Amino acid sequence: MSCDTARVNDHGLSYFEDYVPGASYECGSVSFDQASIVTFAKEFDPQPFHVDPVAAAASPYGGLIASGWHTASAVMRVLVENYLSAESSLGSPGLDEIRWPSPVRPGDTLRVRATVAEARRSLSKPDRGIVKTLIEGVNPEGQPAFRAIAINFVLVRPPSGG
Amino acid sequence: MSCDTARVNDHGLSYFEDYVPGASYECGSVSFDQASIVTFAKEFDPQPFHVDPVAAAASPYGGLIASGWHTASAVMRVLVENYLSAESSLGSPGLDEIRWPSPVRPGDTLRVRATVAEARRSLSKPDRGIVKTLIEGVNPEGQPAFRAIAINFVLVRPPSGG
Repeated sequence: MSCDTARVNDHGLSYFEDYVPGASYECGSVSFDQASIVTFAKEFDPQPFHVDPVAAAASPYGGLIASGWHTASAVMRVLVENYLSAESSLGSPGLDEIRWPSPVRPGDTLRVRATVAEARRSLSKPDRGIVKTLIEGVNPEGQPAFRAIAINFVLVRPPSGG
Repeated sequence: MSCDTARVNDHGLSYFEDYVPGASYECGSVSFDQASIVTFAKEFDPQPFHVDPVAAAASPYGGLIASGWHTASAVMRVLVENYLSAESSLGSPGLDEIRWPSPVRPGDTLRVRATVAEARRSLSKPDRGIVKTLIEGVNPEGQPAFRAIAINFVLVRPPSGG
């Protein structure tokens, strides 16, 4: 796995107010090789089609594919570097509708795109907002191999205007 | 991270027909230590509260917490060992409603429980069914620290009765 080296917050996303519904960001890309696919899956998801090239070839997938958790985690890395802000990200209560519509195979690279779907101030905690984001990991054929709606808590801009 | 060493399919789950809605299985447990939390997060989710104990202490979490992707991946390991069947598991199109209701901290152990929520034969592919499972990772205080609805494709039992 490797990631683009774009600077954190290349998009100028610092606080809740910067996440505007409809805005879409190309966040970088992530590549998968056979070694990283097998290493991850041996630790976390040792199903035959993730860890054993021979068994994988005989499976319905016709070859080794990445664990969906590997794909999701690798996409997260790109989001931490180029979408979430170290200044304001307060973590996530969860995600909805995680899907892996196409398998990720050794040699594949996914472009990661983040589209702000919803942004609202918290009613109970006025220092933050809740941002929902459509996350997509798109393969070179233009097909999404990963898709999810991420929910994130993000600090509002301090009153000082900081 | 460590996992119980219970045999694969301790519960006798081999094919689609064995996953009966309402049935609930204790699948084992998974433990998190600071080193594994930091190692995972440095690779996939390098937010301060996952990788830096000092920054984490000053964060709203008051200390280091595991990346949600680490928690999910570690729970997956237990499911591969004690819920899914190597004979019949065809992978997953995705999950719904992933939530991390409580943080996972160094030293925590989660018990993993899988409850069959829904099981239906595929209309388009008669060799398989679709199983939806409520997955829970419960901490020693009895609170869920991970929850999701997993969707899995599972082969039906071969006509031979195999």
